[in-house]
Amino acid sequence: MLRYMTAGESHGKGLMAVLDGVPAGLKMDEEFINKELTRRMVGYGRGGRMKIERDKVEVVTGIRGGFTIGSPVGLLIRNKDHKIDKLPDVKCPRPGHADLAGVQKYALGDARDVLERASARETAIKVAVGAVAKLIFKEFGIDVMSHVTAIGNVEAETDGLFFDEIKKIAEVSDLRCADKNAAKSMRKIIDNAKICGDTLGGTIEIAVLEIPPGLGTYAQWDRRLDGRIARAVMAIPAVKAVSIGKGIECA
Amino acid sequence: MLRYMTAGESHGKGLMAVLDGVPAGLKMDEEFINKELTRRMVGYGRGGRMKIERDKVEVVTGIRGGFTIGSPVGLLIRNKDHKIDKLPDVKCPRPGHADLAGVQKYALGDARDVLERASARETAIKVAVGAVAKLIFKEFGIDVMSHVTAIGNVEAETDGLFFDEIKKIAEVSDLRCADKNAAKSMRKIIDNAKICGDTLGGTIEIAVLEIPPGLGTYAQWDRRLDGRIARAVMAIPAVKAVSIGKGIECA
Amino acid sequence: MLRYMTAGESHGKGLMAVLDGVPAGLKMDEEFINKELTRRMVGYGRGGRMKIERDKVEVVTGIRGGFTIGSPVGLLIRNKDHKIDKLPDVKCPRPGHADLAGVQKYALGDARDVLERASARETAIKVAVGAVAKLIFKEFGIDVMSHVTAIGNVEAETDGLFFDEIKKIAEVSDLRCADKNAAKSMRKIIDNAKICGDTLGGTIEIAVLEIPPGLGTYAQWDRRLDGRIARAVMAIPAVKAVSIGKGIECA
Amino acid sequence: MLRYMTAGESHGKGLMAVLDGVPAGLKMDEEFINKELTRRMVGYGRGGRMKIERDKVEVVTGIRGGFTIGSPVGLLIRNKDHKIDKLPDVKCPRPGHADLAGVQKYALGDARDVLERASARETAIKVAVGAVAKLIFKEFGIDVMSHVTAIGNVEAETDGLFFDEIKKIAEVSDLRCADKNAAKSMRKIIDNAKICGDTLGGTIEIAVLEIPPGLGTYAQWDRRLDGRIARAVMAIPAVKAVSIGKGIECA
Repeated sequence: MLRYMTAGESHGKGLMAVLDGVPAGLKMDEEFINKELTRRMVGYGRGGRMKIERDKVEVVTGIRGGFTIGSPVGLLIRNKDHKIDKLPDVKCPRPGHADLAGVQKYALGDARDVLERASARETAIKVAVGAVAKLIFKEFGIDVMSHVTAIGNVEAETDGLFFDEIKKIAEVSDLRCADKNAAKSMRKIIDNAKICGDTLGGTIEIAVLEIPPGLGTYAQWDRRLDGRIARAVMAIPAVKAVSIGKGIECA
Repeated sequence: MLRYMTAGESHGKGLMAVLDGVPAGLKMDEEFINKELTRRMVGYGRGGRMKIERDKVEVVTGIRGGFTIGSPVGLLIRNKDHKIDKLPDVKCPRPGHADLAGVQKYALGDARDVLERASARETAIKVAVGAVAKLIFKEFGIDVMSHVTAIGNVEAETDGLFFDEIKKIAEVSDLRCADKNAAKSMRKIIDNAKICGDTLGGTIEIAVLEIPPGLGTYAQWDRRLDGRIARAVMAIPAVKAVSIGKGIECA
Repeated sequence: MLRYMTAGESHGKGLMAVLDGVPAGLKMDEEFINKELTRRMVGYGRGGRMKIERDKVEVVTGIRGGFTIGSPVGLLIRNKDHKIDKLPDVKCPRPGHADLAGVQKYALGDARDVLERASARETAIKVAVGAVAKLIFKEFGIDVMSHVTAIGNVEAETDGLFFDEIKKIAEVSDLRCADKNAAKSMRKIIDNAKICGDTLGGTIEIAVLEIPPGLGTYAQWDRRLDGRIARAVMAIPAVKAVSIGKGIECA
Repeated sequence: MLRYMTAGESHGKGLMAVLDGVPAGLKMDEEFINKELTRRMVGYGRGGRMKIERDKVEVVTGIRGGFTIGSPVGLLIRNKDHKIDKLPDVKCPRPGHADLAGVQKYALGDARDVLERASARETAIKVAVGAVAKLIFKEFGIDVMSHVTAIGNVEAETDGLFFDEIKKIAEVSDLRCADKNAAKSMRKIIDNAKICGDTLGGTIEIAVLEIPPGLGTYAQWDRRLDGRIARAVMAIPAVKAVSIGKGIECA
């Protein structure tokens, strides 16, 4: 059983994770984890911070001679812009964020304390954790792919393409979109949204290929695979809907 | 912290749940739980079994003099048609069900062993568990409402209605739909689907009203409210997508 | 992963357990569970209630044709003396019991609400859960034995005896003690304690034989076998010390 | 709910912990944590390594301006002697250690991979985690004290002393023993054991003072305080017995 906890704030000293249950004998490919971290930073229309971030993971624990030994894998990413103690208070809670609920829940005087943790920055350490999971997957020939299927009202058209083709095209797209024409329109509406000081929603499709049958179980509600996937994905701050198979299309 | 586990098969002796963490001093309203169980059985187009089911809960544990005492609440629903030992084997796994994966996972010779548990029948005990949760909610003035917003390609129109109005109309509809015209069309396509031996998907909206701020937390991924809701809802067999707020509309 | 929750009060309707993670294909031997329940009731000096208890388990869920099918096993034991609603209040919390803390924790007006759950009666359902675990053990040739090694200041002498010899002798002893001379003295001090309205402590030794290496792990504190055993054993109300190997002798 | 996971090997890069559930607004006193780490290193008869260790914690996450903000507290202790990759293999598993079971469990070719994690070194990060817990305790006036009550066959005599007196005396003893005469004898048998290449067992008493009633609960086996304490304490590698109250004395 693999489990993990993360820690870290947006402008604190860094981000950490303890990943328990990683099998022994796995080659710990730090370069791969760093590539995944870089991959996270690319993307048309990303904010300015992405350019200054050059995240590098340090695998602090769980390895000997470059291989895992069955003990917990401890990951550390230092923040380049550690300035949490100097940043101004945020007195006005922002709508659509955890600011207001967080301030009330933890009796804080300042939403800065909330937004430092309830931040997209946390996904950096999650990407590192996910990269370790991908290393385990590789041993079993399991492949994970994802691509952007829509931004705003522009939908990508990928009918007729196999997952490995989609993956190949999306991987070199600055929008991770496998439909080049759609990507052009997407860039335009992103530019427009930026000018208006607005943002855009979107959808992504994730496929995990070659997984063995029998993961999860129907035996107890909290062990169902669909539910566990939904929980994990919905725990990414910006995600507001999860669909398995044709769930949303049917809706 | 409230937690629960359920047990039980579709045609076994019955369904059970142990519900840990129910506060002391709560009036255990068995009649309310039974009303919720009856409410589950109503619905246009439901299968024949629904008519023979007359589920009644027995609150076996956790109460004294009709009130909870802080110890786990144990629920039991007897199956009226206990015949699991006489039912024929299911040798051909049905698509869209857990049959094939379950047979492989548990090394079973017969999909009957899978479908008896991976069955919509399990929702009966979940409704009973949920009814106890609703009793707790009531103490805090929290109300839960739900209604059908679409079946097949027919969408209900409820713009301009408040949640309590929607609830009132939906509650007396055999489709739990607050739009009477839409309901008419829904009944038609249900009838057609039945003739064709087919089924239809749909969407429901659930609203929990008057909840206090601060439930869940952004502090750790597995304690996020969105993720926990998504897991719980997606663990209902037929559910294939979950959306918070305008999640799907934006998609 | 095997996990379970129990529910039930001393004089409520009954005791329940949901046992999740039982593998499929296990013969569910109800007779064996009942024998374990009877074995629990035997014992020199036990209170009067033990004589009226004739516990019988009902395996409500998780089986088909007498074999487990991978779904949760639900157990039910009906209480013969269901009278919780008629029993008088307990206004004076008893020392050495959970009464006082329980009344304060759950804001109860009456310690009866506490002692009905914080009762040795709960061990009946635990014995049933343990019996299912023993059925699983049997498949792997794992054997569990236990015997009384001391009562009050009388110690049993079993040096030189193998575990299977100890087991055989202890099993037919009304004190579950493998030293017949010691047992005589134990009976005497038990009789004396009874006359004085007192009780006596004691120690038992439990051995699980033929377990495979590698259960538990040093990798994370909460997965260590010693700690998990200690938690499980210390969760039996009367147990106040747990020792692995020569732990207490060394102390 | 407070929970934590640790990571780290004896001669790896360092030790880490993620501590989830720390309330907001707590002054994070790093100096106090470091004092606790130094306190761990003191002790008559400790191995040579203790002298080179000068553990210092870095609170990487969970704080702003020196106070907790409700997000997970991440702790990091760098190992001064990071040399895991250069240390020789351990081909002969040592009795009384996790070596053999660990090698079998994780299919390792070398017990070094086991002993690096299954090491008393892990207690350093646990002391840091415990120090944060003590900071929380302080806010409620809860005090934790401990002292050595026996080493080998030498027992300390503290009858008639109050806990705060015992604490004061033990705190300045190099054996953390409140009986100066006993401590003299203990030093002698420690010296003798050292000469013989042997070690000695011992017992310690821990008291937590001024805790509020109602921690833990009898409601479910895995939430009982005694059991949870036993699990936590027994998860320290060298601990082989746990006793609550007069548990062992009665035995």
